Amino acid sequence: MSIYNEKISRYNEKTRRQKKNNAWPTLNFHLLPKTVKRRVYALKRLQLQSANIEAKFYEEVHELERKYAGLYQPIFEKRRDIVAGAVEPTEEECEWQSDREEEDLAEDLQKKAALEEKQADSAGADDPKGIPEFWLTIFKRVDMLEEMLQEHDEPILKHLQDITVKFSEPAQPMSFTLEFYFEPNSYFSNTVLTKVYKMKSEPDTADPFSFEGPEIIDFFHSIIYSINFHWMLIVSVCVQDEDLDFTLGTDFEIGHFFRERVIPKAVLYFTGEALEDDESVRRLLLCVIQDLDDEGEEEDEGDCDHTVSI
Amino acid sequence: MSIYNEKISRYNEKTRRQKKNNAWPTLNFHLLPKTVKRRVYALKRLQLQSANIEAKFYEEVHELERKYAGLYQPIFEKRRDIVAGAVEPTEEECEWQSDREEEDLAEDLQKKAALEEKQADSAGADDPKGIPEFWLTIFKRVDMLEEMLQEHDEPILKHLQDITVKFSEPAQPMSFTLEFYFEPNSYFSNTVLTKVYKMKSEPDTADPFSFEGPEIIDFFHSIIYSINFHWMLIVSVCVQDEDLDFTLGTDFEIGHFFRERVIPKAVLYFTGEALEDDESVRRLLLCVIQDLDDEGEEEDEGDCDHTVSI
Repeated sequence: MSIYNEKISRYNEKTRRQKKNNAWPTLNFHLLPKTVKRRVYALKRLQLQSANIEAKFYEEVHELERKYAGLYQPIFEKRRDIVAGAVEPTEEECEWQSDREEEDLAEDLQKKAALEEKQADSAGADDPKGIPEFWLTIFKRVDMLEEMLQEHDEPILKHLQDITVKFSEPAQPMSFTLEFYFEPNSYFSNTVLTKVYKMKSEPDTADPFSFEGPEIIDFFHSIIYSINFHWMLIVSVCVQDEDLDFTLGTDFEIGHFFRERVIPKAVLYFTGEALEDDESVRRLLLCVIQDLDDEGEEEDEGDCDHTVSI
Repeated sequence: MSIYNEKISRYNEKTRRQKKNNAWPTLNFHLLPKTVKRRVYALKRLQLQSANIEAKFYEEVHELERKYAGLYQPIFEKRRDIVAGAVEPTEEECEWQSDREEEDLAEDLQKKAALEEKQADSAGADDPKGIPEFWLTIFKRVDMLEEMLQEHDEPILKHLQDITVKFSEPAQPMSFTLEFYFEPNSYFSNTVLTKVYKMKSEPDTADPFSFEGPEIIDFFHSIIYSINFHWMLIVSVCVQDEDLDFTLGTDFEIGHFFRERVIPKAVLYFTGEALEDDESVRRLLLCVIQDLDDEGEEEDEGDCDHTVSI
């Protein structure tokens, strides 16, 4: 029924939950008269039918994402070409009225900026190719990705020119593939590194009511490279945990983040505007938790900037 | 591109964010050479095109939800009839193998339960109509709803027999309507109370990059009742704040919760099984925040049961 991708990301939590005992207060079910119990069981059987319909819904959403990936493609290709310097945008294509970054600067800062800009231009950087270090800058600005970077990854990621997502074809098992495109470089010989995330969208027969949409069931890389590129740092940050479930979950979270946020809005991560949105989500989550917290004290409405006790 | 409903619920946060200054570190944008700046502006213009495509995507998801509402309808009608006692499910319809609630009880508790059950049956409750207080029980079990209930609401909500959601027709402005069906009662004369949530799915021209999917823009009630029914307690918990933005947001959160969780999975809230899932989400959110928290200390992996400092 929805919360499409929020639900996907519950995969991570699900594995954790399986290890816990269920300490939740259930209804005093045994106190219900037998006739009423029967009816509740009938409702639970109906709920199973709902879960199967819900699975079909998610398959159709996936289909819709596939269709829209086609609509976004020309835009992403144009972005790739501009980033790589393969095409130069026209004057009209570069018109930008509400240049918030500049507006936000106070007047004296603007003067300083103008000076620094002049220095930057005269420092030989006046006509670089495309947008240098576009993707590396994004990696460095997003905490989740920056944590994985090591110093020796940086020169390699300078050659990263595009990241794309491809959805599985209709009638194929549900999956999506991340593709990382590199310009020819001295570190490895192939120019595309890919990672496939296989998913399934059907209720688990052992626990059908836990179904909340597609879950990742597996992933694999088709990566060939000639040197020890630290790809595993990018795709899996928790190998040292020796907890495969957790690793798989974390890996998927990163894949999901690339697919849902970084690829569709790359320029906003480059400029920093999307980081503000992510912080906004973080603040929202805190408010939600506060609402959910049984033990929470009475607080001033609308104020979430305090310590949350759990 | 998705996180369909997660994004809807950001409405609440958005109004809050508008009141804040943007204190986010933006790129040292002014340090970029002019030619590179031009290209970044070109990417931002492309991003606007993406936002408009994304709006269409959400319209199609809404259409899909409408289609699936039709598929769920026979199931929900059957549920309504069983709850109200209008139909009695057959033996086959009530078969339920993995009766977790009973399995979980230790043996001595089971004996006690059997005794209490006998008492319940002999106390004249052996053949009540349908599932008494089905929706009231749900209201009482879900914290967000329980907080709004006052003692005098309870006898009224005993007459609540069904809650449904209806999506707007194609080509109509995007909206959804919650309908609360009551059996004839001595408190008010009409049997259906409705609440319409109007939405829009298009980027705000003043802040197009903040677009994250449909947002509520308005809601209205078509409620006529003969006594002072505390409906406002159900639909709007924060009137006393005199903060309309916040009230609207909270109201929508509740509407969203009815639409996404309570209506599709009512029986699981009745038995308590869905509460476990909600708690699971709460724990997941805490982990996400922990990951996002820049100032967070190094913690043991997988352990989220501690105080989160913000």
